[in-house]
Amino acid sequence: MVIPTIQIKHGTIEIIDQRLLPGEYRINVVRSGEELCGAITTLAIRGAPALGVAAAFGLLLAVEEAWGGGDEYFFDTEGEHAASFAGRAGMDAVRAVLDQAREKIAATRPTAVNLFWSLRRMSARYDADYVSTEDLLRALYREAVAIYREDLDMSRRLGENGASLLRNNDAVLTHCNAGGLATSGFGTALGVVFAAVESGKNIHVFAGETRPLLQGSRLTAWECIQRNIPVTVITDGTAGHVLSNGLVSCVIVGADRIAANGDTANKIGTLNLAIIAKRYGVPFYVAAPSSTVDLSIANGAGIAIEERPSEEVKRFAGVWIVPEQAGALNPAFDVTPSELITAIITEHGVYYPPFGGLLSVSPGTPPERS
Amino acid sequence: MVIPTIQIKHGTIEIIDQRLLPGEYRINVVRSGEELCGAITTLAIRGAPALGVAAAFGLLLAVEEAWGGGDEYFFDTEGEHAASFAGRAGMDAVRAVLDQAREKIAATRPTAVNLFWSLRRMSARYDADYVSTEDLLRALYREAVAIYREDLDMSRRLGENGASLLRNNDAVLTHCNAGGLATSGFGTALGVVFAAVESGKNIHVFAGETRPLLQGSRLTAWECIQRNIPVTVITDGTAGHVLSNGLVSCVIVGADRIAANGDTANKIGTLNLAIIAKRYGVPFYVAAPSSTVDLSIANGAGIAIEERPSEEVKRFAGVWIVPEQAGALNPAFDVTPSELITAIITEHGVYYPPFGGLLSVSPGTPPERS
Repeated sequence: MVIPTIQIKHGTIEIIDQRLLPGEYRINVVRSGEELCGAITTLAIRGAPALGVAAAFGLLLAVEEAWGGGDEYFFDTEGEHAASFAGRAGMDAVRAVLDQAREKIAATRPTAVNLFWSLRRMSARYDADYVSTEDLLRALYREAVAIYREDLDMSRRLGENGASLLRNNDAVLTHCNAGGLATSGFGTALGVVFAAVESGKNIHVFAGETRPLLQGSRLTAWECIQRNIPVTVITDGTAGHVLSNGLVSCVIVGADRIAANGDTANKIGTLNLAIIAKRYGVPFYVAAPSSTVDLSIANGAGIAIEERPSEEVKRFAGVWIVPEQAGALNPAFDVTPSELITAIITEHGVYYPPFGGLLSVSPGTPPERS
Repeated sequence: MVIPTIQIKHGTIEIIDQRLLPGEYRINVVRSGEELCGAITTLAIRGAPALGVAAAFGLLLAVEEAWGGGDEYFFDTEGEHAASFAGRAGMDAVRAVLDQAREKIAATRPTAVNLFWSLRRMSARYDADYVSTEDLLRALYREAVAIYREDLDMSRRLGENGASLLRNNDAVLTHCNAGGLATSGFGTALGVVFAAVESGKNIHVFAGETRPLLQGSRLTAWECIQRNIPVTVITDGTAGHVLSNGLVSCVIVGADRIAANGDTANKIGTLNLAIIAKRYGVPFYVAAPSSTVDLSIANGAGIAIEERPSEEVKRFAGVWIVPEQAGALNPAFDVTPSELITAIITEHGVYYPPFGGLLSVSPGTPPERS
């Protein structure tokens, strides 16, 4: 089962609006770069791997916006490249439009590295030498579709690698949502659970609700229910209680950026779980594609942490839950030091400290811009 | 400044409805035992010391309900004992009414020991020998008012004891609400902050929001704003981030029950903070009246943890935030092992591990029923 988190169709991007789940399942049609950037900043689409795909598709949309229109699409559904505008669009003009779009997309969210990795892959492609605009556009389209398909394939392989760590009747605590909704459709941390269940194991999921935006209670619980996997939501403060009482076999979380030493930025609250799991001897796994590894950053101190609007903490469902005069801190991520991480699971295998193996393969390392 | 959290007036109990803050400040008039039990179970009034006072006042209300009415009050405002019904109420009948009320109040919430401690103090009083019903009723009334006044006095002394631990410009992280709203009006953990501020120190408060019922963001932030103390609300998952980044000088929390070895039950999420504070060498203080110590329980394993309705986690402000088919765990408290506690602050002083001093004085130990 693959969730249609993000897809292309008739010159548009279709995304599941993740702000509305679990109350409403709605597909939003994104028709412009501005709409796409809005969808990313408001978390209509979110999750590090999915943001990589969104960035790639966003560059296609920029071309569509500039030269498309009517019945003529630059791109249609995956695998269908409809029209190229080659006659109308000069090579330099195309590159200028793409550079501008890239800058806007890069400014949406600073922490998840996959977005930048994807933009670099795409720009390396359109900066290469071509004999015609048509060739450039075709290469651009193929690269975006490749990023999407590789992400799906990555999820599957990562899930299978991680599933070997789970035993029958294990209870897995996860945080935020690192499922199909955070990727092209299968998932990373939750993908490990899904792969284990598909191989016949009974797995119980504890979903940390993940304040302030409740991706755990809204999205992770929803995905488990879709797959008939038993799921129990807990508030983030309940982690110590369940871990100290032996209710959890292991913790598995996703990642937004992994520094060269293995320090991992992930959704705020992850560090709490890592520290508590360590105290009680519960394995703490990070599951992420190799594209999440950022070799340009030595350790967690170098990772930029997005600070989001305090209103996300102060207001819920239209109700103010904090006095207006009080401040609120709303960092979107925290950094878990590598020493608290039992293993990092990627599409290439399971890596243990000091994570040298992970870094030596690191095939997701962004290609340098040519 | 004392907040009128709970008071008696004209044969009724007046409480601030804490479910409505910070949006609305409303005084509810409680006229029957049933209403009082409802106010306790729905957390209109909450906080271990305040529950002790509520239990004592609740027994007065039981007598009022049975024999009062019209303009004749058994009790009026604090210090005013209006009428005794001595002519109408026989000694055995009064004791029967009180026993019944005690059972109902005792069944409201299992964890905070102060409630049981207060009921035992009251029943020891009304079970004693009296020459007339009037004497019994007068003694009962005086004991309830004493419990209320002692609580206020306890808060003040506890606050001053704890304030010595704070330096100018400290930042204090607290959890849930252990302020004036959790006591007769001054506070325990927050009382320490208030006393330090009154002595001229600048203190910044970080209030953990405390899901699911948000006592931190709603009540602690509100109390700080009332006193012009700068306060920053954080989600419970943000604790690791602020503690690892050196933003917090110490953690101070309240307690609902302290076992004989110092293990402490407090609002769910407290254990997380204690474990994280330990990792980063940040002092972790428990502030509670000595009546919170329960010598009948050897350690934390013996403390009954209240499990509250899963709807508190699954629904917020009328919105379902968790799919209906998903489960939710909602323990109201967790247990912090004494080894994680730097010191316990009571009205008698500051006690350090192994907390022998705390236990040897333990003047709040419930008097045995005579």
